[in-house]
Amino acid sequence: MKLLSFTAAGRDSYGALTGPAGQEGVVDLGARLGLRLPTLKALIAADAFAEAQTLVARGTVDHALADIRFRPVVPDPGKIVCIGLNYRDHVAEGGRDVTEKPVIFTRFADSQMGHGEPMVRPRVSDKLDYEGELAIVIGRPGRHIAEADALAHVAGYACYNDGSVRDWQRHTHQFTPGKNFASTGAFGPWLVTADEIADPTKLRLTTRLNGGVRQDTTTDMMIFSIPEQIAYISTFIPLAPGDVIVTGTPGGVGSRRNPPEYMKAGDVIEVEVSGVGLLRNPVVDEA
Amino acid sequence: MKLLSFTAAGRDSYGALTGPAGQEGVVDLGARLGLRLPTLKALIAADAFAEAQTLVARGTVDHALADIRFRPVVPDPGKIVCIGLNYRDHVAEGGRDVTEKPVIFTRFADSQMGHGEPMVRPRVSDKLDYEGELAIVIGRPGRHIAEADALAHVAGYACYNDGSVRDWQRHTHQFTPGKNFASTGAFGPWLVTADEIADPTKLRLTTRLNGGVRQDTTTDMMIFSIPEQIAYISTFIPLAPGDVIVTGTPGGVGSRRNPPEYMKAGDVIEVEVSGVGLLRNPVVDEA
Repeated sequence: MKLLSFTAAGRDSYGALTGPAGQEGVVDLGARLGLRLPTLKALIAADAFAEAQTLVARGTVDHALADIRFRPVVPDPGKIVCIGLNYRDHVAEGGRDVTEKPVIFTRFADSQMGHGEPMVRPRVSDKLDYEGELAIVIGRPGRHIAEADALAHVAGYACYNDGSVRDWQRHTHQFTPGKNFASTGAFGPWLVTADEIADPTKLRLTTRLNGGVRQDTTTDMMIFSIPEQIAYISTFIPLAPGDVIVTGTPGGVGSRRNPPEYMKAGDVIEVEVSGVGLLRNPVVDEA
Repeated sequence: MKLLSFTAAGRDSYGALTGPAGQEGVVDLGARLGLRLPTLKALIAADAFAEAQTLVARGTVDHALADIRFRPVVPDPGKIVCIGLNYRDHVAEGGRDVTEKPVIFTRFADSQMGHGEPMVRPRVSDKLDYEGELAIVIGRPGRHIAEADALAHVAGYACYNDGSVRDWQRHTHQFTPGKNFASTGAFGPWLVTADEIADPTKLRLTTRLNGGVRQDTTTDMMIFSIPEQIAYISTFIPLAPGDVIVTGTPGGVGSRRNPPEYMKAGDVIEVEVSGVGLLRNPVVDEA
């Protein structure tokens, strides 16, 4: 099942994708379950996937894809935990060393936008860069989750573009400012539930800028695997339904090209994960 | 006005402190306004302080202080933005250099607890340290806030103890894990509204461990002032009502004493800010 958050006719809701490829529509689950489960996060927390599946199986289509605006898959996660420097080629291109423990930084929920919405290059910088990543969304809550149990806590998978303002990322040793500009965290287009992803280490992750491939890897190249990430994070903080882990970007970021290549208004940036989806965002200048 | 979030008789609510020093009680604002303004964050967002003041002026006391459990002042902030290395004596004791821009790291809301609740030393470390700080809570939202306008965006002030697990803070170059252990961010006891703080640079900030003074400064010693913090942060992300900025800790942290002095079960840690309040937490071991 593919689950998404969206706005239609001025109303925020969530739903499931339905129909054959190229003719997909959206079943509005929020319209049917909203009093009890007002958001996709609430649906995930209630583990109400079977109920959603029953509604999808009826075959009703409430919205054409053209009639919705995508919101971030989970617009209101309690936590967005980002893994830095988790592919060797990206570590190497930055002239850094592989760390013994995962590099963890964070993103605020209101820095995010959905599929199709503009990624905004801020007034204060011309160094906006892409970072294509696989995101996981937590389903079952837990603390001190063992690696062997970790994947049972994953509700599903999505594409993420961890848009990074490189000069502000390097203002000090802490990455926060450059990783939290408004409308730089693209999260979409939807969540593919974990039952449809047989093995999250066998996914291909590709980033394209204006159609040209810039990053291309497979998720088995992660230094810290998804179970290792979940075990490490849940050692310090409980993971809750709807929490997002952004699992790291491979080599090929624009700032490490020679000469560096940053995004500018009019560009189109895409992150594709095989079996998950294609996240596309136009780039605009801040108003 | 002093505003707080609490649990009484098993119900989460918020209210205002009332009555003379030593005999304070709580007016339960949540019980009166909760359908429209369910949380202190909602009250702040609605700028409903005058309405709250009218209810306080009636003189009703709903709860004795002994009958409530304090929650974090704002239990559900959209953002907790922490300023690192913002007092010269703390920069010096860590052997670091003053940075040209503020050092920004973050805390997750569910790492917090209220006044009187235990600060938890985790199983995985014996290096739990205190950091006494002044916290500000945002009232009026804004982006690109000018320094001259910044204090008009502050709803009020509170004490904060940015409890830090030092070895996990230094697992990599990013501070996140050591700053986000569950039940290490003490935020309380209440918010003092900005109208009662004539000048936030004239506050005295003191941290005591088992009664012994460990940190003692005045807030005019900050390297980056509160207006500079608000201007810098709002350049990258909009500030929203209820957002928290934790403004940095002075010298005297336990990890930089000789020999280092970490907190352990049975300790009592206090952060006091003149004109704001006294935040006290016992230390316990993780169960």
